[in-house]
Amino acid sequence: VLTRRIAVLPGDGIGPEVCTEAIKVLEAVSERFGHQFELDVQLMGACAIDATGDPLPESTLQACFEADAILLGAIGDPKYDNNPAAKVRPEQGLLRLRKSLGLFANIRPVTAYDVLLEHSPLKADRIQGADMLIYRELTGGIYFGEKGRTQNGAYDHCTYSKEEIARITHLAFQSATTRRNKLTLVDKANVLETSRLWREVVQQIAPEYPSVEVDYLFVDNAAMQMILNPKQFDVILTENMFGDIISDEASVIAGSLGLLPSASVGETAALFEPIHGSFPQAKGKGIANPIATILSVAMMLEHFGMQEEADLVKEAVDYTLEKNVLTPELRKDHPFTTEQVGAFIANYV
Amino acid sequence: VLTRRIAVLPGDGIGPEVCTEAIKVLEAVSERFGHQFELDVQLMGACAIDATGDPLPESTLQACFEADAILLGAIGDPKYDNNPAAKVRPEQGLLRLRKSLGLFANIRPVTAYDVLLEHSPLKADRIQGADMLIYRELTGGIYFGEKGRTQNGAYDHCTYSKEEIARITHLAFQSATTRRNKLTLVDKANVLETSRLWREVVQQIAPEYPSVEVDYLFVDNAAMQMILNPKQFDVILTENMFGDIISDEASVIAGSLGLLPSASVGETAALFEPIHGSFPQAKGKGIANPIATILSVAMMLEHFGMQEEADLVKEAVDYTLEKNVLTPELRKDHPFTTEQVGAFIANYV
Ligand SMILES: CC(C)[C@H](C(=O)O)[C@@H](O)C(=O)O
Ligand SMILES: CC(C)[C@H](C(=O)O)[C@@H](O)C(=O)O
Repeated sequence: VLTRRIAVLPGDGIGPEVCTEAIKVLEAVSERFGHQFELDVQLMGACAIDATGDPLPESTLQACFEADAILLGAIGDPKYDNNPAAKVRPEQGLLRLRKSLGLFANIRPVTAYDVLLEHSPLKADRIQGADMLIYRELTGGIYFGEKGRTQNGAYDHCTYSKEEIARITHLAFQSATTRRNKLTLVDKANVLETSRLWREVVQQIAPEYPSVEVDYLFVDNAAMQMILNPKQFDVILTENMFGDIISDEASVIAGSLGLLPSASVGETAALFEPIHGSFPQAKGKGIANPIATILSVAMMLEHFGMQEEADLVKEAVDYTLEKNVLTPELRKDHPFTTEQVGAFIANYV
Repeated sequence: VLTRRIAVLPGDGIGPEVCTEAIKVLEAVSERFGHQFELDVQLMGACAIDATGDPLPESTLQACFEADAILLGAIGDPKYDNNPAAKVRPEQGLLRLRKSLGLFANIRPVTAYDVLLEHSPLKADRIQGADMLIYRELTGGIYFGEKGRTQNGAYDHCTYSKEEIARITHLAFQSATTRRNKLTLVDKANVLETSRLWREVVQQIAPEYPSVEVDYLFVDNAAMQMILNPKQFDVILTENMFGDIISDEASVIAGSLGLLPSASVGETAALFEPIHGSFPQAKGKGIANPIATILSVAMMLEHFGMQEEADLVKEAVDYTLEKNVLTPELRKDHPFTTEQVGAFIANYV
């Protein structure tokens, strides 16, 4: 019996609902394959502020350190967003968690599902066959630089060291060699010094991966190319802020934000979460799509070396899409609920 | 006879070709309405580096200061892009020009042209009727903050003062009152201190424009909404870097980058340019679309208070689109050349 300890942070809004379904699937995997998953559910985000005043309580961080992997739902609450003066915000918990665990690489696969082509705002012929993997640096850049106020203004500092760039660059190159051998660096090297450093480091590392063709795109052009011709991309590598923007933009290719999982990895820790947010308007209505979180579980299983298990979960999701067992954003007539979709997938497994 | 002095900076790549056509149209306007446009053609960009070592020679800057308006083609050359160590780059000329002239607001209209709906990568029903105006701050933020290298890394500082935010915010609100009375601020206030300052300043100014409904979007979400539902936007207001990304992304709605003009204005100076780049691969082939530059001339005429003249140029462009007199990116069979499109429009005028 393989035992793995998983810290579960359901978070805010629809986070708890989608986590419940992902756990159903995890339990189905455990039954089928005889693994043991020990779940340790903890508070993070707005719910943690409400309960403790801290978006990332010490006990949550501790549980994450002790776990083999972390499953996160979503965090965030509008009551903090339009209050620029709020001193404590849910996002601080997530950023501190990423930084404390050293989760420097955020990995987001984006694929156009054939059965969902009609749901994308993009024309089918532009996206059919699109299949990319975005490597976003997650613990550096302007997110974590010094920031503050001056008498009459505000500032945010963006910094990158060569090591911070090099470690994720190696991961991205390695991944490209297992795919279509293409890597695109997205930067703004015609303006930013940090981007010029990214380009330098990537150029230095590239010869170690001779099979990989390297491409450089300015972020403004990349934002356009992502829509004009998404099939050109295989592995995309980029810094924190550009990755935030580009990967959310890329989600339109899949036809729904509710389908896209992500992994955030470091030297030792690994966290898995859907890329969608806490979607507070949908909370408790049973309309949230649990698939992104379930596919995040599949990424977690791969991370555990359980490839067969991961493949089975992905197969179950494909079957669900094929059978049109979908939540309202993907199926207008007689949609299924969050719970029904989760149960259907767990059942298949 | 109205006299206006225009500094023309054709720049690099296709810049000179599209400027030639725009000038044809300007001359047609001058004949038809009896105005006098004095053109002062100057070097800027890679061509200026080649000729003088400086992307923005003193004589060019001087000519811009003396002009009533500036017409810019495009700048940039790939030989500088993949050389992170290059000390002199064409873009420095453009950035210095923007800063020296105080061109703090870059204004980009984006419209879905009915006759070109099929050319957009987006489904027609998503974009039909889309019509937005993007206000991008152009002389602050991370573009102009301190930047440099440390022993082992690099940094770029993003700063904004309240005044820098307030002056463009007023322009954007004023413009919203002449349109559909909606303003969307795009920021990353859940992470960046400068974004929180933007939100504060906009919230402070909003009551002065009670007819305008104000909306706040995080930039990652905005990058998604731009594709999912572009019709929701009227006036978009944002900082320099986010504006660079979002406005290039928005260009996919029009069906071609070759259609989109822009104005950059300050207290006294005003510069007009297509949003596309120097597209070096197309240089000299007669395939560049001159319409973006011609529409930039229309914006210049409006700036001069010549509304009738501007409307006529726009009407001529509409007619050209309707008659399918278009360059290859918009017309595969028997496309017209850059020169033919320019002549057709000038002729209509
Ligand atoms: C919630 C926010 C801080 C976060 C980010 O910007 O990183 C989110 O948008 C994401 O992409 O995970
Ligand atoms: C050429 C470059 C410096 C410029 C910018 O980023 O501002 C361009 O992309 C633009 O949008 O005008």
